[in-house]
Amino acid sequence: MTTVRVYVTLKPSLLDSAGRTVAGSLKKLGYTELSEARIGKLIELKLENYDEARVKEMCDKLLANPVIEDYRFEVVKETVGA
Amino acid sequence: MTTVRVYVTLKPSLLDSAGRTVAGSLKKLGYTELSEARIGKLIELKLENYDEARVKEMCDKLLANPVIEDYRFEVVKETVGA
Repeated sequence: MTTVRVYVTLKPSLLDSAGRTVAGSLKKLGYTELSEARIGKLIELKLENYDEARVKEMCDKLLANPVIEDYRFEVVKETVGA
Repeated sequence: MTTVRVYVTLKPSLLDSAGRTVAGSLKKLGYTELSEARIGKLIELKLENYDEARVKEMCDKLLANPVIEDYRFEVVKETVGA
């Protein structure tokens, strides 16, 4: 069993309104050192067998919207047997 | 300027319905090697000056719901000047 973490983030050129709201709220709470917050997704997949090309396909087809989002992924751990 | 990445995930004991839906869709698309998907948040903060205790406070007060979510964070890079 392989665990893969996929990180999906909005492209840097796009306005992240959820992130802006979070940053505004944190500043109001007194965290004035904050200059920006951006919010993305973290998707953890557990796979019977890992194939990099297939994970890339999953991201392109369903997990990320390549028009507005960037993604990257990493293999966290492989458990033999289980 | 310091960039901090906060990863917020649902506690493992809780049912992640969004993750289940994603896993179901991926299986329907033919990715039968998938056994589970869980969805969390990735929040990237840009801070004028980094203080670990204050970032922990931000997570507890606003970024995560400690009742149902776990979080961890890491410093990505520090840029001097900028």
